[in-house]
Amino acid sequence: MSNKKLSVCIIGASGYTGVECYRLLLQHPNIKSISLVANSNVGMQLSALYSSFDGSRHDANLLSIEAIDFKTTDVVFCCLPHAQSQKIILDLYKNYEHLKIIDLSADFRLNDTKVYESVYGTKHLSPSLQASDVAYGLSELVSKDELKQKRIIACPGCYPTSIIIPLKPLLQEELIDSQGIIADSKSGISGAGRKDAVQFLFTERSDNIKAYSIFNHRHTPEINEKLGVNIVFTPHLVPIIRGIESTIYARLTPLGYKTNIHNFLTDFYKGHQFVKTSLKPPSTADVKGTNNIKIHAEQQGQMLVMSSVIDNICKGSSGQAVQNMNLAFGFDETTGLSHLSALPV
Amino acid sequence: MSNKKLSVCIIGASGYTGVECYRLLLQHPNIKSISLVANSNVGMQLSALYSSFDGSRHDANLLSIEAIDFKTTDVVFCCLPHAQSQKIILDLYKNYEHLKIIDLSADFRLNDTKVYESVYGTKHLSPSLQASDVAYGLSELVSKDELKQKRIIACPGCYPTSIIIPLKPLLQEELIDSQGIIADSKSGISGAGRKDAVQFLFTERSDNIKAYSIFNHRHTPEINEKLGVNIVFTPHLVPIIRGIESTIYARLTPLGYKTNIHNFLTDFYKGHQFVKTSLKPPSTADVKGTNNIKIHAEQQGQMLVMSSVIDNICKGSSGQAVQNMNLAFGFDETTGLSHLSALPV
Amino acid sequence: MSNKKLSVCIIGASGYTGVECYRLLLQHPNIKSISLVANSNVGMQLSALYSSFDGSRHDANLLSIEAIDFKTTDVVFCCLPHAQSQKIILDLYKNYEHLKIIDLSADFRLNDTKVYESVYGTKHLSPSLQASDVAYGLSELVSKDELKQKRIIACPGCYPTSIIIPLKPLLQEELIDSQGIIADSKSGISGAGRKDAVQFLFTERSDNIKAYSIFNHRHTPEINEKLGVNIVFTPHLVPIIRGIESTIYARLTPLGYKTNIHNFLTDFYKGHQFVKTSLKPPSTADVKGTNNIKIHAEQQGQMLVMSSVIDNICKGSSGQAVQNMNLAFGFDETTGLSHLSALPV
Amino acid sequence: MSNKKLSVCIIGASGYTGVECYRLLLQHPNIKSISLVANSNVGMQLSALYSSFDGSRHDANLLSIEAIDFKTTDVVFCCLPHAQSQKIILDLYKNYEHLKIIDLSADFRLNDTKVYESVYGTKHLSPSLQASDVAYGLSELVSKDELKQKRIIACPGCYPTSIIIPLKPLLQEELIDSQGIIADSKSGISGAGRKDAVQFLFTERSDNIKAYSIFNHRHTPEINEKLGVNIVFTPHLVPIIRGIESTIYARLTPLGYKTNIHNFLTDFYKGHQFVKTSLKPPSTADVKGTNNIKIHAEQQGQMLVMSSVIDNICKGSSGQAVQNMNLAFGFDETTGLSHLSALPV
Repeated sequence: MSNKKLSVCIIGASGYTGVECYRLLLQHPNIKSISLVANSNVGMQLSALYSSFDGSRHDANLLSIEAIDFKTTDVVFCCLPHAQSQKIILDLYKNYEHLKIIDLSADFRLNDTKVYESVYGTKHLSPSLQASDVAYGLSELVSKDELKQKRIIACPGCYPTSIIIPLKPLLQEELIDSQGIIADSKSGISGAGRKDAVQFLFTERSDNIKAYSIFNHRHTPEINEKLGVNIVFTPHLVPIIRGIESTIYARLTPLGYKTNIHNFLTDFYKGHQFVKTSLKPPSTADVKGTNNIKIHAEQQGQMLVMSSVIDNICKGSSGQAVQNMNLAFGFDETTGLSHLSALPV
Repeated sequence: MSNKKLSVCIIGASGYTGVECYRLLLQHPNIKSISLVANSNVGMQLSALYSSFDGSRHDANLLSIEAIDFKTTDVVFCCLPHAQSQKIILDLYKNYEHLKIIDLSADFRLNDTKVYESVYGTKHLSPSLQASDVAYGLSELVSKDELKQKRIIACPGCYPTSIIIPLKPLLQEELIDSQGIIADSKSGISGAGRKDAVQFLFTERSDNIKAYSIFNHRHTPEINEKLGVNIVFTPHLVPIIRGIESTIYARLTPLGYKTNIHNFLTDFYKGHQFVKTSLKPPSTADVKGTNNIKIHAEQQGQMLVMSSVIDNICKGSSGQAVQNMNLAFGFDETTGLSHLSALPV
Repeated sequence: MSNKKLSVCIIGASGYTGVECYRLLLQHPNIKSISLVANSNVGMQLSALYSSFDGSRHDANLLSIEAIDFKTTDVVFCCLPHAQSQKIILDLYKNYEHLKIIDLSADFRLNDTKVYESVYGTKHLSPSLQASDVAYGLSELVSKDELKQKRIIACPGCYPTSIIIPLKPLLQEELIDSQGIIADSKSGISGAGRKDAVQFLFTERSDNIKAYSIFNHRHTPEINEKLGVNIVFTPHLVPIIRGIESTIYARLTPLGYKTNIHNFLTDFYKGHQFVKTSLKPPSTADVKGTNNIKIHAEQQGQMLVMSSVIDNICKGSSGQAVQNMNLAFGFDETTGLSHLSALPV
Repeated sequence: MSNKKLSVCIIGASGYTGVECYRLLLQHPNIKSISLVANSNVGMQLSALYSSFDGSRHDANLLSIEAIDFKTTDVVFCCLPHAQSQKIILDLYKNYEHLKIIDLSADFRLNDTKVYESVYGTKHLSPSLQASDVAYGLSELVSKDELKQKRIIACPGCYPTSIIIPLKPLLQEELIDSQGIIADSKSGISGAGRKDAVQFLFTERSDNIKAYSIFNHRHTPEINEKLGVNIVFTPHLVPIIRGIESTIYARLTPLGYKTNIHNFLTDFYKGHQFVKTSLKPPSTADVKGTNNIKIHAEQQGQMLVMSSVIDNICKGSSGQAVQNMNLAFGFDETTGLSHLSALPV
């Protein structure tokens, strides 16, 4: 295992995924320095945005991107919204060959750049780069070599992470039909980001549930591309802060029918320390603040129903980003993440 | 329209569905008196259990069942748990021929009493009664004559109401396949009742989501029996007080493929004032405290996804009970319910 | 009692107090028409902002102020933010002599216009008007004549309502010291308004409590002016949607020491149907959606502690506005408000 | 600093404070073994009660007290309810001289055992022990020697911790009057414990605030005894899971008037790593899951208002218990606690 100490820069440190990267990297033994860039809050302290840092020795200045010496930076975590992200990333990619870029946005997630453009309504600035130097960072399902070699690691969307991890092995082993898969996800409100939008106010979301983006959520093409099948995906907004629960419905093949899916998944993910299988439906609170995904699988006749839970900001975004960094730099996969535990109450 | 004034008795008035019946009947113009029975709280005031009644002129004594003169009672709303309910009801049925009995429990919901016994783990005390003198009170889909004639009205479960109303017409008209229907429901915690159980404590449920009773919720046989098909149903506990959102997945038949399902449902339920269709996915808060069900239908290719919302205690239970009483007694269906409106915030 | 039917206009209908006025006036028997003005949302339907109106027959167009024929309007409810409000109001006041103006903002609450300017950082546009034609609409404590005669009714702030109603009679009767009064209030998040501000996002406010504006909340000078004493007032943000609980601490005078304060307040407010006294500390949920204030008073030795609860949008704002309209126009004070009841769960 | 490795036993491990002790001790470098006693759940796994431990290597058996070899145990954390606690503790005290007993209940908090009996309605089983071998474990304000020498450490109540820490130094230095101090506290629902009581159900507490135990909360005599003055204390139930915010009102003496209280407290607690002072009112979320207390002090004229926040289960109970253990055994005070950090969102 490597003993390297890295200098990292978080771009977009004022958003939820940005500050979560910071929270995780602060406790990472292989990090020697962290700089925070937040162009719209330059000059402010992080504690001005996140009061939990007030008075903490970890409070930090928010800098402009121009203030960063990327020559001495090893890794950039880019936590900007899509479209903005790729501009910054391409610039860094061109000018700093040594730089490892971990992108938490959607900009490099899709191999098919035409689909990207259609889904995100913005031009993909470098299809050739997409094809040649990007790894899709679903940590458990991508090779370490990919993560080591590719200069850009595109971290998956939160919903895709919660859905692909349970499904991919079952599709690979032909235990389930490729047709008719349904994923019904319930997400905490942090998934919307730290955006001042009326619909995410406490008054609008508390004590309230609704489905949204039926048939047209941006994550569906990503899920479909990575699974190689077309699923029906319905997200919902639910009044919790962090967490995604995904209930996944699939039809078992004759082979799947004879298989104990819970055991299969347990075996498949043996050695992957963040993937837990559970004999009971898990609660989102079980994984809050951790990089774990917990999966419960139940089958009756030809029907398979799985329930997975993740913390959308951690395993659904920043935790997985750090996990990818670990794999890319030859650290133990769980470095800086294994100590995380959910509050029992 | 009838101008009768009814004397009603609520048995099990200390539970949520019981006190909700009371809340609704208090504002019903055709009610002349309401007595409240709560055997485990005899002698207490309702306000001792529900502080919103403290100091209200509607505060009332909780009586024992022996204190009620059923000879002068017109309607009984039985809000006891299953198994307890049927005992009380059979006794009343035998001794008071004039009495209309509206049961909010599960005891008389299933035509197939063997299924009832298997699902609820308790003997059905009168299969012949089940067959001859019970109406299943899903108000929009049962005939007024049924409700008028049958002495026992069995009110549906909350989840079944939210799922059957959108699906039944589509199955009747063969717009969707009978196979492969999936309902994924998210319920507020009041659905568990006013039971002191640790898992329903604020500390356990707040900021937390989980699926439960996968493949084996008691409401599934009820849904299946009434729809005449087998669906897969997965309920979830979500941290809201009142509300159920059900996302329903079905495959369109060739006929359904050519049909605008939103328009079809709008037409089908024209004249049914509590069934609203919506061009956008509805929020549970839209119907909180009301007897409305709001349904949104979207179709893409052969797939149909619907999202319905109800208030689980109102349209999912007590509101529908009052609605059934209205139909049974020849009142306008909306009497005592039409004034209800959700708080806009 | 008058039988007049009024035409009303709500200016600023897109905010919480505006839509709450609408909710209440819709069920008011003496209202013949309601027009909604929301200059920043002209052309939209109310349901585009408040989905509970989607599909409702009460959904309405949001108009520009220019579209209103004030010549045929009887009452204006002005629900704009302070500073904006007075501009509109002065214009209406000058041009439409018959118009009754009910202001829900802070602009005309303070008699001392210099204090107003210092507290709200904006010039008071008409001190002479303030002195001559404004009634401070704390309904239980202002005379009907005032409300009838003055053309502008300034509705109190939400915190002041919850604090003045319990305290004023005690000060008048010299039952408590004028020195050393403390009010500690906990408010639901709707008190901040329907503003897209990050600090009121669900993610920021859920599962979180904090004090704010210690010593300098804008409502303190209002409370002090109306009570004629200086109190210490500390507000807090608490994760509920609607509600204010105010805990009030005061020292009893020798006369107060011998007085049963609970009984005194019960007598004082006899005949005032929205003021309830309670022998136990009340819950904010007891009054949610209603125009009630519930007050509990306990004394030990020379110390008096009171706990009052209101719904900040109803009795704390729009409900009291409607109550003032009732008194001003000779309707029964409770018209359109008495049917409101809190959900028992 | 000591390098000892301790064997600990948690009695009452199934309650919230018990499982929180476990959560903290699991990450403590000086703990070599932890056994969990929960007499009413003997034979169960901890994960049967706390699903976050499901599948975790830290899941553990719940044992009966008879199964514990106290001869080889160094420390007992007693997390039983009051009255039960003292029975167990006295038994252990008599039979195991080496044993350090850390009591999280109220049984040994009060020096005046007559007050204890009156407040808790139960006989104090050993007043002589109370007088001779008990240390009151408010870590920042008790001497290390006390904690080292006394065999029983009585951990303070949660509210008292949040109130005594800000007030004690001010009283000692005569910066505030001893008369007229008021503490108004707002607590999360976990403070009630893991008790199946209807009033703590999600349905009863969500979206709801109320005061309780006005003038008579059991923690008031404890606060008064430790401060040496009589304060007025009012607790409130607020819908958050963990957290207490206490707003404290006091009158400054002439000396206090000239003192910058914020600076004074900052200096007083310099070197006490868990006590933070803040220039802005703190949020309970800032300290959630941590052993920190954050205090904000503002003064205007002769009035001082302070707002303090703690996590009621951590610094308010189990965190402080571990902190006391550290001090008693010569570990750095922050061992096993310093890594704790609040989630930024």
